[in-house]
Amino acid sequence: MNYGIILYILSSVLEFAGAFMLLPAGVGFFYGEKESFAFLLVAAVSLLAGFLGRLKKPKSKVFYAREGFVTVSLSWILLSLVGALPFVLTGEIPFYVDALFETVSGFTTTGGTILPDVEVLAHCSQFWRLFTHWLGGMGVLVLILAILPLSGSYNMHLMRAESTGPSVGKLVPKIKSSARILYEIYIGITLLQIILLLCGGLSLYESAGLTFSTVGTGGFGFLNSSAKDYSRYVQVVLLIFMLLCGVSFNCYYLLLARKPKEVLQSEELRAYLGIAAGAALLIGFNARGQFVNLGESLYQALFQVASVMTTTGFTTCDFNAWPMFSKTILFLLMIVGACAGSTGGGLKVSRLVVLMKSIKGEILQVIHPRSVKKLHMDGRGISAGVLHSIRMYLVLYAGIYLVSVLLISIDNFSFETNASAVMAMFNNVGPGFDAVGPLGNYASFSAFSKIVLMFDMLAGRLELLPMLVLFSPKTWKK
Amino acid sequence: MNYGIILYILSSVLEFAGAFMLLPAGVGFFYGEKESFAFLLVAAVSLLAGFLGRLKKPKSKVFYAREGFVTVSLSWILLSLVGALPFVLTGEIPFYVDALFETVSGFTTTGGTILPDVEVLAHCSQFWRLFTHWLGGMGVLVLILAILPLSGSYNMHLMRAESTGPSVGKLVPKIKSSARILYEIYIGITLLQIILLLCGGLSLYESAGLTFSTVGTGGFGFLNSSAKDYSRYVQVVLLIFMLLCGVSFNCYYLLLARKPKEVLQSEELRAYLGIAAGAALLIGFNARGQFVNLGESLYQALFQVASVMTTTGFTTCDFNAWPMFSKTILFLLMIVGACAGSTGGGLKVSRLVVLMKSIKGEILQVIHPRSVKKLHMDGRGISAGVLHSIRMYLVLYAGIYLVSVLLISIDNFSFETNASAVMAMFNNVGPGFDAVGPLGNYASFSAFSKIVLMFDMLAGRLELLPMLVLFSPKTWKK
Repeated sequence: MNYGIILYILSSVLEFAGAFMLLPAGVGFFYGEKESFAFLLVAAVSLLAGFLGRLKKPKSKVFYAREGFVTVSLSWILLSLVGALPFVLTGEIPFYVDALFETVSGFTTTGGTILPDVEVLAHCSQFWRLFTHWLGGMGVLVLILAILPLSGSYNMHLMRAESTGPSVGKLVPKIKSSARILYEIYIGITLLQIILLLCGGLSLYESAGLTFSTVGTGGFGFLNSSAKDYSRYVQVVLLIFMLLCGVSFNCYYLLLARKPKEVLQSEELRAYLGIAAGAALLIGFNARGQFVNLGESLYQALFQVASVMTTTGFTTCDFNAWPMFSKTILFLLMIVGACAGSTGGGLKVSRLVVLMKSIKGEILQVIHPRSVKKLHMDGRGISAGVLHSIRMYLVLYAGIYLVSVLLISIDNFSFETNASAVMAMFNNVGPGFDAVGPLGNYASFSAFSKIVLMFDMLAGRLELLPMLVLFSPKTWKK
Repeated sequence: MNYGIILYILSSVLEFAGAFMLLPAGVGFFYGEKESFAFLLVAAVSLLAGFLGRLKKPKSKVFYAREGFVTVSLSWILLSLVGALPFVLTGEIPFYVDALFETVSGFTTTGGTILPDVEVLAHCSQFWRLFTHWLGGMGVLVLILAILPLSGSYNMHLMRAESTGPSVGKLVPKIKSSARILYEIYIGITLLQIILLLCGGLSLYESAGLTFSTVGTGGFGFLNSSAKDYSRYVQVVLLIFMLLCGVSFNCYYLLLARKPKEVLQSEELRAYLGIAAGAALLIGFNARGQFVNLGESLYQALFQVASVMTTTGFTTCDFNAWPMFSKTILFLLMIVGACAGSTGGGLKVSRLVVLMKSIKGEILQVIHPRSVKKLHMDGRGISAGVLHSIRMYLVLYAGIYLVSVLLISIDNFSFETNASAVMAMFNNVGPGFDAVGPLGNYASFSAFSKIVLMFDMLAGRLELLPMLVLFSPKTWKK
């Protein structure tokens, strides 16, 4: 293990964290809040520590997948550890584990909160809380790659470890350019949504905050009622941008490169839209008794479906009160998640599509043992390596899920609370059912359970292996 | 598809079903019950229909895995369809779907009932109900293979489709001899338990019935309170024989062949006993507040753990009232299940062991990409084919589980009820939690949900593929 280079990159991350934190500090000064000094202090310390850590240039440039995974998972943990400090210093979240939970939930774009009342937060703290969604959505290391003059083999390994989906989001041969294009698209979408929300009568502060939360598919908000009390116009903007950010950013690159045909033919995109539409219809009819008419029911169903499937977690009604069939659909949508290469979480639609094809192939194999049929997606053959890694992903996914449910069950909440809490955390959704439903929060879990759920959020966001590698003793041996 | 030979084997199954049904008819006559005529009638019709169906000898001997799977799944469905008739004719279970549910639950050794009161059944009906467990435990086609003068390639395919576990239970080169040895061991264990229960003061009728239910790892019983009201002696006999029948029957063959060392070194056996002991300890301490002292708590924990893990389903207390941590352990044990090649259900311990090794290997692969390490079990390398099929098994397993939970959620029972009902049915356990806990039953589900759960029981018992192949349109094409 090349510790030198890991320390060097972690120091860069620390510097970035410090720089990012100047933004909420600025917001705080604008509103004349004393809480902004907490952000300024942590920013200064982070910048200094990062600067000192970077003084020692790494001797060796050796950097393999192992180093990539460890660097990425440690970076995210470090970001969260530092990002949580201001909440404790301002006294808004007195317990560090709670502040850490809120910050991990922010960076991983989960959006599950431990705050019973989010409306009392200072502007600067609220801004930071929402901005972590924006940073975590596309990835902090991807951002660093896009900006810093790093080069060499580690670019690929870092991007691979932080990107979502079974294949790497390499748009153009150079990783650095890919990272930059991704962020350009991301910033473009962000600006567009801010403008649309401004048109809806929200202030710049509100528009920016809500947009960070939407495009990162996070789910934190300004109001305790989430998105319920916004105008229908604002809700529709949120709905559209949640759906847009659940799409692979490759699609937008292809659109910019004037290849709309390839986008339309994407099997993942079709499945994503098909599942969302099907789920919304089923719930709309099943839960129609909860609303004034079928139209309203279908609208509410579509909003909640888009929110859960893109793993954002905004709510416009209490879906915990829905019939069990509708709730079970939402539960399954948490697993499905958004598209690979989007800012959303979950298993990813493309993995699901490949698994379905794999199941079909397995049954055909029994019926016609001698016909060996290669699986295809978007007209290209799926390699045995990708197939293997997707199946292993499901094995790991199921294992981590079940063990987590067992561990948090020590708190003796209901089965529905535990099963949905882990599902919502692991897939970076946010709200679950029962005690952690849209009207509840994660405050009442024990510190131990909160640590388990933080692990789940990070493992879900970083797609399992980076976090698991961290906990293997073999990683740390010479 | 060779329809001729499938029809021929199904006719044999029908003849066997008719012959088996003479047993409850005899029991009924012994007790002077008019209900026995129902069994006699169905037996006569089955024997006649089977005889007529066997008149036409199949022209072609072509028999592949496909025919094996279809034959086995159709045999089990046919057995259940016929086996359910007497319950309707006697009027004890007036609705055919309910009678079918009870019979499928019997043959698949699930042991979940739709009867709120099992103590009012006639002796013959109760005997038949328990005897289906015995027949289903080791497998009906395995029995037919052991007795009938069938020969040729289909032996292997039938045995493969009906046996439990990732590899086939071929003890000796000839399948026919393997099937016979398995049944000899099975009958030996059955006789031993009957004698031990007789020593405990139970009648021959009670001893035989309880033994059928135990050695088949079924779980139906004579009393509404399951095993709670039996003496401690009887309970301990049940406990021991549940655990014994959750062990691979290969182990008993090895013991008979005087190879105790191989048995002791079996990784699956060690994991099986280790998991059971660990789970019993954890629950014993976690649920100690429910019992008079820790000793009693540990005993109750061990009984329930053995019952759930071997997928039998006898209960001596209402585990639905336990703390959520204990209940979650039981939930996970339902998935783990018993050993491959036993009469128990579930994922099977050996599959779990291989999956764990597979996960470990995957993480090592990231840390040392160039070191290709083959996985081993019991000192032998695990082939890529077995690894692939075990991973695919988990994919299919998760898929069927989740879809089933969604389908039965239409009935609007609680999340805990649905999640545990499907888990208990799919793994052939019997009782779940909440509405289907030890004090509840499956009566209140809709006919649609009962059909879904029947599919799950059969898919679980036949290890997924046979039932899935049945529903693929390609199976039925020329």
